Amino acid sequence: MKKTNQIDRRAFLTRATVGGTVAATGAALAAPAIAQEMPEVKWRLTSAFPKSLDTIYGGAEVLSKYLSEATGGKFQLQVFAGGEIVPGLQAQDAVTDGTVEACHSVGYYSWGKDPTFALGSAVPFALSARAMNAWQYHGGGIDLYNEFLATHNIFGLPGGNTGAQMGGWFRKEIASVDDLKGLKIRVGGFAGKVLERLGAVPQQIAGGDIYPALEKGTIDASEWVGPYDDLKLGFYKVAPYYYYPGWWEGGPTVHFFFSKEKYESLPDNYKSLLRTACQAVDADMLQKYDHLNPVALKELVASGAQLRSFSAEILDACYKAANEVYAELEASNAPFKKIWDSLKVARADWYLYNQTSEYTYDTFMMIQQRNGTL
Amino acid sequence: MKKTNQIDRRAFLTRATVGGTVAATGAALAAPAIAQEMPEVKWRLTSAFPKSLDTIYGGAEVLSKYLSEATGGKFQLQVFAGGEIVPGLQAQDAVTDGTVEACHSVGYYSWGKDPTFALGSAVPFALSARAMNAWQYHGGGIDLYNEFLATHNIFGLPGGNTGAQMGGWFRKEIASVDDLKGLKIRVGGFAGKVLERLGAVPQQIAGGDIYPALEKGTIDASEWVGPYDDLKLGFYKVAPYYYYPGWWEGGPTVHFFFSKEKYESLPDNYKSLLRTACQAVDADMLQKYDHLNPVALKELVASGAQLRSFSAEILDACYKAANEVYAELEASNAPFKKIWDSLKVARADWYLYNQTSEYTYDTFMMIQQRNGTL
Repeated sequence: MKKTNQIDRRAFLTRATVGGTVAATGAALAAPAIAQEMPEVKWRLTSAFPKSLDTIYGGAEVLSKYLSEATGGKFQLQVFAGGEIVPGLQAQDAVTDGTVEACHSVGYYSWGKDPTFALGSAVPFALSARAMNAWQYHGGGIDLYNEFLATHNIFGLPGGNTGAQMGGWFRKEIASVDDLKGLKIRVGGFAGKVLERLGAVPQQIAGGDIYPALEKGTIDASEWVGPYDDLKLGFYKVAPYYYYPGWWEGGPTVHFFFSKEKYESLPDNYKSLLRTACQAVDADMLQKYDHLNPVALKELVASGAQLRSFSAEILDACYKAANEVYAELEASNAPFKKIWDSLKVARADWYLYNQTSEYTYDTFMMIQQRNGTL
Repeated sequence: MKKTNQIDRRAFLTRATVGGTVAATGAALAAPAIAQEMPEVKWRLTSAFPKSLDTIYGGAEVLSKYLSEATGGKFQLQVFAGGEIVPGLQAQDAVTDGTVEACHSVGYYSWGKDPTFALGSAVPFALSARAMNAWQYHGGGIDLYNEFLATHNIFGLPGGNTGAQMGGWFRKEIASVDDLKGLKIRVGGFAGKVLERLGAVPQQIAGGDIYPALEKGTIDASEWVGPYDDLKLGFYKVAPYYYYPGWWEGGPTVHFFFSKEKYESLPDNYKSLLRTACQAVDADMLQKYDHLNPVALKELVASGAQLRSFSAEILDACYKAANEVYAELEASNAPFKKIWDSLKVARADWYLYNQTSEYTYDTFMMIQQRNGTL
């Protein structure tokens, strides 16, 4: 077990209730008052994800269920899969331009428009799922991100997390930084920028086209999500080396993006319900992944997947290259810098704290697992 | 960094719309239908915790706020601090016997009545917060626990988590298992049983009495919660050695316990809202702890707290003793065995899976923190 007792000491109903005059005023006034409190709301939500990803696509269906059930069917969210209204990668645009009232997507899909979008979801070597949630809900992260999102006509709430993703599937072992040179890897956004600096050649390929590209050798590697989602696509058959960690997504948040005007037009009780339901869905997706991924990982390994961790040399080089990209963004993009500065403070505090109970507890339990004494 | 690309392949291979008829029927029927869907509900909730623990006590207030806001004040939960209606440790009894409709407590406070209660909250060397949530929401844990709770007239839902707790405050350093002999430590339930086997002398002392007992040396050590809560009580001044991990609470769930009959008498929309709101509050408490604990830990260390990890020898001995207690409970308590068997499967899967992306990602980030390169 890693010695962890050597931490450097130096490092170290507020609002009024909504509405509600019905009961006291009797039947004559009941109908109009209720109509105001419980209007029929029908929104369309376009998911960025295909239905086959029941975990991540499923998050929007869970939100729809929670809202409908709690309002006796009055607040309806009709969920469309990626491609049904607009292509998955354009879900955020469809909210910004008013095509739909809501979408379920990840901020980094809009990296090309403004890298600041990515800060609400995941950027390389940032926060784990728990730390990301702490920063968002109690460290000011939700408000900071919404300051930026408002300039795109969006009000956003966290709506899921996958946990730390895997690094992806490789046709050959990657032993050193040299092995990255010329590597055609399907990966986008920030991670692509970083890998490009190390000589890799990032590729943009839609999910359904990855398998044949790996099979033919048109590409050498591809990232996807984690064991449960990856198992379905069968990558282990054509690119058996399954690397970790996915250093570009240590705890990515999936978001519900709502039209800012539509959100603001809701009565206060619906606004509160929507926030509560999103917070529940946000937790639920991670809970579902954390239940399904361990079982799927065993099945992958039994099917022939070869687990490999990126070497320290590779991680160090990627970290260095990522910090160069961060420095450029800080210098050129003020909204990016404002949010990133806040994230960095949270990151430093978390990764000091996390060395105590959480890490040593987990480490001890993993030792038992390896020793066969669990 | 621990080499984690050497996971034994054999380890993998061997484990192998509710309601809602109102709108269609028009104004004449609207009032009675709405009255049925949105009745005035006023429940009393007794918390097991004092108001001074704003994190853990605060969870019940957050639930009250979420319910009230979403229903325009119709569903009210009046929150009482521990001691206002019944003493904190009797909160569960007050629900079982119908004194109140709800409480906010931890199952292990009822360990003396039946150790099975503790399985829904925390038992030694069990699941971390994320794994506990995965098991509860998607691994059948909530239903399994409720089978047991029903025999005490309770319907329970997770309502908070503190994350892995610290091991507590010690007046002297504990270097070996021998140092536990005769140690008077304020700790209860299952952990007390385990430490007793190693020669320690567990003590039961109310929260407010711990500080003077440590100061006078009436006791040698005391567990409490984690940095944020512990800082308020000032233990670092009289028992400066702050040990981790709290192996008896790797990710304890705080519960909302409701009168089963009262829960079942709610209309379906309120039932759903209550479940959604509890899931949100459950997440919110951990998010709050995870934001506050890192900052508090720095302050504790700056104030003189001396961080220490329990030695491998001590952890191994505690793990062995805990397994002896488990064996006795499995043999003597069938409801305990049923839930514990399910938890153990989840634990084995999680601590295999967790060795991949999550652990290596966190490890890399902690190395940067120690190197001053974060």
